[in-house]
Formats: sequence, C-alpha cells, structure tokens
Amino acid sequence: MDYKKESMKLHQDLKGKLEIKTRAKTDTKEALALAYTPGVAEACLAIKENPEEAFHLTRKWNLVAVVTDGTAVLGLGDIGPMAGMPVMEGKAVLFKNFADVDAFPLCLGTKDPEEIIQTIKNFAPTFGGINLEDIKAPKCFEIEQRLTEELDIPVFHDDQHGTAIVVLAAILNSLKLVGKSLDSCKVVISGAGAAGMAILHLLQLEGAKDVTFVGRKGIIGPDYYPDPYRQKMLATCNPRKVQGGMEEALTGADIFIGVSGPGLVTTDMVKKMNKDAIVFAMANPIPEIYPQEAKAGGARVCGTGRSDFPNQVNNVSVFPGLFRGALDVRAKRITDNMKLAAAHAIADSVENPREDYVLPDAFDLQVAHRIAEAIGDQARKDGVARIQ
Amino acid sequence: MDYKKESMKLHQDLKGKLEIKTRAKTDTKEALALAYTPGVAEACLAIKENPEEAFHLTRKWNLVAVVTDGTAVLGLGDIGPMAGMPVMEGKAVLFKNFADVDAFPLCLGTKDPEEIIQTIKNFAPTFGGINLEDIKAPKCFEIEQRLTEELDIPVFHDDQHGTAIVVLAAILNSLKLVGKSLDSCKVVISGAGAAGMAILHLLQLEGAKDVTFVGRKGIIGPDYYPDPYRQKMLATCNPRKVQGGMEEALTGADIFIGVSGPGLVTTDMVKKMNKDAIVFAMANPIPEIYPQEAKAGGARVCGTGRSDFPNQVNNVSVFPGLFRGALDVRAKRITDNMKLAAAHAIADSVENPREDYVLPDAFDLQVAHRIAEAIGDQARKDGVARIQ
Repeated sequence: MDYKKESMKLHQDLKGKLEIKTRAKTDTKEALALAYTPGVAEACLAIKENPEEAFHLTRKWNLVAVVTDGTAVLGLGDIGPMAGMPVMEGKAVLFKNFADVDAFPLCLGTKDPEEIIQTIKNFAPTFGGINLEDIKAPKCFEIEQRLTEELDIPVFHDDQHGTAIVVLAAILNSLKLVGKSLDSCKVVISGAGAAGMAILHLLQLEGAKDVTFVGRKGIIGPDYYPDPYRQKMLATCNPRKVQGGMEEALTGADIFIGVSGPGLVTTDMVKKMNKDAIVFAMANPIPEIYPQEAKAGGARVCGTGRSDFPNQVNNVSVFPGLFRGALDVRAKRITDNMKLAAAHAIADSVENPREDYVLPDAFDLQVAHRIAEAIGDQARKDGVARIQ
Repeated sequence: MDYKKESMKLHQDLKGKLEIKTRAKTDTKEALALAYTPGVAEACLAIKENPEEAFHLTRKWNLVAVVTDGTAVLGLGDIGPMAGMPVMEGKAVLFKNFADVDAFPLCLGTKDPEEIIQTIKNFAPTFGGINLEDIKAPKCFEIEQRLTEELDIPVFHDDQHGTAIVVLAAILNSLKLVGKSLDSCKVVISGAGAAGMAILHLLQLEGAKDVTFVGRKGIIGPDYYPDPYRQKMLATCNPRKVQGGMEEALTGADIFIGVSGPGLVTTDMVKKMNKDAIVFAMANPIPEIYPQEAKAGGARVCGTGRSDFPNQVNNVSVFPGLFRGALDVRAKRITDNMKLAAAHAIADSVENPREDYVLPDAFDLQVAHRIAEAIGDQARKDGVARIQ
C-alpha cells in the first residue's frame, strides 16, 4: 500500500478524525429546559457548592486534553501547531478507540514554556487529565514538572513516559529470556532527548546501575547540555567513565536502547556487546540498526518502533490504559510507581515471552484494561486517588 | 414538571452532555498506519506547506470553542469555571443539534482579561471560531474587541450579539405590525450590561436615533460607568436629555427593551408610553414586566426570555446558524453587517408576523439554514470570507 497517498486521501475524505457527539436531546421545550436553561442552573449550583461534583455532572471525569506546541512532531521537527493537529487528532482517536477516554486536541500557538504552562493551567478546569505531546526537549521537562506540581489532575508527557514505560516492559521480558537481572546489566542509550531521559529514569527506578548515553558526538557527560534537568540526570550515568563513541560504549554492554537516528549502530558494534545482547532500535522510520543486522552481530532479542518487524515498541500500548486507570480513580497525578506498575502490567500481559514476542500486540484491548487496573491500584497505594 | 429535580437527575445520568466521536478506524495495522503514524505525516507536511490545508485535513473547518471564565453564568453571577461547565456543555449540544457545528467547551481558571485574551489566542489555531460566553461586562467588551483584531477567525460574544440580533429581529417584525419606523421611535433600554450595549449598537446601525438607558439609579448618562467602551456608547444616547427614572424614560416611548431585573416596569408606566407600544422584558426568570401587565397598560407587542409566553427571545435562534454560515465561508470575523443580516434573516423567516408571533419557533431548524446563508452572503460582500 502507498501509505502516503492513501493516508492523504483518508484525511481529505474525513475532514477531521474527530467530531462532537451530543448525549442530550434538545428537540422539545421540555428537553431544552432540562439540558439547558432554566434547569441546568441546578447542576451549576451543585458544582459551585462542591467542586468535586464537576466529576459527576460534566464530562470532566473522562476528558483529557492532548496538548502540543508543534515543536517536535513525529520526526518532522518544529512544524507548528496547525500542522501538528493531524497527529493530535490521531492520538485522540486512539484514546477513544482503545480505552473510551474522551480526548480533545489543543494545538497552541506559542512556543514559550511559561506561556504554555499558563495556558494549560488556565484551561485545566475543563479536564480530568493533560497529555502533553510532541513538545521538544528540554522545555518539555520543565513544563511537565511545573504542571504536575501546580495542577491537581494527572499531567503526562507521552513522548517521555509512554515510550519509557513500554521500553521497560520490553526489557523486563527480554531479561527473563536471557536470564539476566537489570541491576547487573550495562545499558547504552542513544539519544538524550525527551524519551531517552525518561527511559533512563525508569530503568534506574527498576534497578539499573550502569547506563551510558551516546549523543551525536559520542559518549556524553553531564556538561553536554546546558539545561539543569539533563545535567542532573546525566551525572548519574557512565559510572565506568568510558570514553569514545558508540563502539566504545557498546563494548561489553548488555542492552542497547536507541531513540535517536538511523543507522548509528553496525553489526560489528553489536558483536562487541556481551552475549545474549538486547537491542531495541527505535528511530523512526529507519532504526539505529535493523533487527537482522543486530541478530547477525549476536543480539538475541531485537525490537524497533515499526509495525513490520517483531517486538514493536508502540506507545499505543500505554497511554489509553494509563489515562483510563488514572481517570477511573480520579488520580491527582501520575507517580513514578504508577509508571513502573504500568510497565509491569504490560510485561505481564505476555504470558510466555519469546524472542520475537516480548511485547503484547498493539491491538489487544485487554492490555489497556490491565494497565488501567494496575494504575488504579497503585494510585490508591500512593495516596493520589480521589476514589478509593 | 419539577425542572430543578429532573434536570439534576438528567445531569447525574448523563455524566456529561458531550463526548468525542471518532471518525477513523484504528483496528488493524493498516488502519492505524493511515490514521496515525507513519501515514499521518503527509497531512502534517501538507499543512506546514500551506496552513489553509488545516481547514481540509483536520476538524478546524467545523470547530468552535465555547469559552467562559464563569463570571456571569446565567443569572447566577460569578460561580467559577467548573460550575459554568453544565451551561457550556449545553451550549455545545445546541451548536451540534441545531447546526452540526462541533463546539467544545473550555472553562478558564482565570478572570484576568489579559490572561483570558492570551489563553484564547494560544489555543485558537485549533479552532475555526470562538464563541465567548457568560463573561461579565465591562471586560467582555475589551476581550472580544482585542480577539477580533488579533485573530483571523470569527470571535463572537453570544451574550452581547446573539441577544442583540434576536431582539432586533423581534423589533423589526413588531414595527411592521404597528406601522412605525425605527428611526422615528423612542427606545428605552433597561440594563447597560453586555446585552444592553450590543442591542444599542445594533439598533443604531439599523437607524435608531433616540435611545435612553435606565440603570438601577435611574436614567444613566455617559459618566455613569468608569469603562471607556460604555462611556462612548452612552454618549450617543438620551438626545432629549430626559432626567429621572424608569417612569420619566418611558413617558412617550415607543419601545421598551429590558435586559435587567425583575419587576422594574409597572402597568402604569406602560400607560405613559406611546400608542402601540412594544415591550420586550427579558429578565430571567422573572421579567421586568409580565406580558399580561404590559398589555393591560396598552402595549401591543410583548415578549420575554421565557418559553412559556409568546415571543420568546432565545439566542438559540441565532448562534448555531450564525457560526454555521461563518464556518461555511471560512469567515475571518463577524462584521456588523453580518449581524444585521442575521437579524433580518430571522425576522424574514416569520412569513406573517402576528402580535403573538414575531419570532420564529426556536425549534425550527430552517431558521439556522436561513441565517447561515445570509451570514455567508454578507461575509462575501464584506470581504471577510475565505471561500467565495
């Protein structure tokens, strides 16, 4: 299939992948008087009296904003808010189709972090959750952190944590197959952007002790980036003080995780990794190394971001179920434990992991249910659930 | 029917009067690849190349934001953004049910005019139009004016202009019945808020020369309010320099328009009006004077804001069709001429006006079509239509 041509035709035919569905009738005087004035005043007054009633009397309980400034859309870069909308509409479609979450895309005409924060805070009373999308690093770190602190609904930057959660799930099942434990593995991550930093954080929470980052100019230390968030994160990396480039980093490594660019890893480099290497090369559409090349170098478990190879790392396995669970217990935020719980729920949903099957099928709707349950349970344990 | 109890039950049962409807499938690898990645990148790039493509490839062409800060909700006053949501959801339901416009409610957690303006500007790229709702005077004047100047999509404060348009329509048909012309009529308006000012403006555009405002403390002049917008508008009023209160203002008047509070006008005051007086008393739920009392004072045409009396002045006759028309020609803004055209379209949709039937039935869906056509035609004439 010519995806480009067919997708363009689909978008032209649909003229928008979302629309509003009304749940109330207004076809008689009586119906209008109940759904609108004068009857509606009762619902307004009940919420004024007790703001939690907003979760019962309006759609807030099921409503997530999908927010972007269009600065890091897919691999297309800074294409602006309107050009980002087809992706955001697609995301909202996935929210509804996979987990019955009502998601509404909002594309912002500002790139200023402070204005983005203020704008989201201002419209937040409408929503039960905020999904940040395709906002570039490093400002995405500050925006998410500030909103998490200042709002009482979950804020989740999918490019960071959605990716990290499904990567951790893949690693967990891969480690079962090769019989290694994460805390004894040497891990190399290529690409210190939004996804790379979140993967680092989650792997460390799960016990990883030896993670090394590789950037365009080789192994990177804490002084590489000017922003304090990455400086702090990178200071915890590269404990063996390895110097050099990708080859040096991969020598003796157990796990490679690529969220960077095409073709950065060769078969020869994989040969220098430890036995039973795990290689997840997720640059899109061309991975850091194709699975067959990695296998030729001795890798045992391989995955990509593509649907035409085994072990596709796909955020769609995460965000619908994660927000379903958070909304169901009216969580105030997404804790680190909840992210870990989601990763384990995904990993556990594969009953018998095989080398070409460490992640569940992206279309398995049961996965969203399992994540939702795990997220809800953990939110209660962490004291961030409004509903017990 | 106990509207309060029944409406509360409806809101509890519905848990939101809106939801998201998806128009794209994502149930196979192929469907996902077309609606989302990798296919969606084509639509993104097409919009990046030519921003007008956003009107073809996303829902922008049919999407209106219904925005409030919750400061003037119904007659309930400043009840806050979350408590305003049931009204905004209701409004969005009416947009969809009456004119197939996809409207999404956004309730803002700020009351600061500058922040409201900036927030709306920031999320405007998502939408084809902005409907402002229940924002109190005088800040609503500045917010609407600034947004109209600074955005290239229509911005419409329904409490101002929706009301003014349907009031003008009612007056136009009433004048046909009594055989008077607007430019020779003495008009009294009670209530110099958002609606009152917009009614004044539209009546003057239609030819009214003698309009007098009455406030809580009597006839008001240009120095009554501190805000420059109302000072300028009120400076054009009361050309005969009448002094006193409601009684003095109504003496010799032809038209009374009430957008104020209950019971401010008596039968005796109406008796002092000119022959064939026109009385539209729209305070809700209790009008300035009930129709039977006005008739007892000699009024010939009477109307209220209530559905249980003839001649209900109801904005639902206006905003769905107005935005339908504006969206259909991709108007950049709503001009004064477009507002006048909408009023005439509503008036003309009543073929044979009678004293108890000067406005069309609120449930007549043909009215929205007529307004939409009139709005589109006028937008083209005024050079604000993107589609010819």
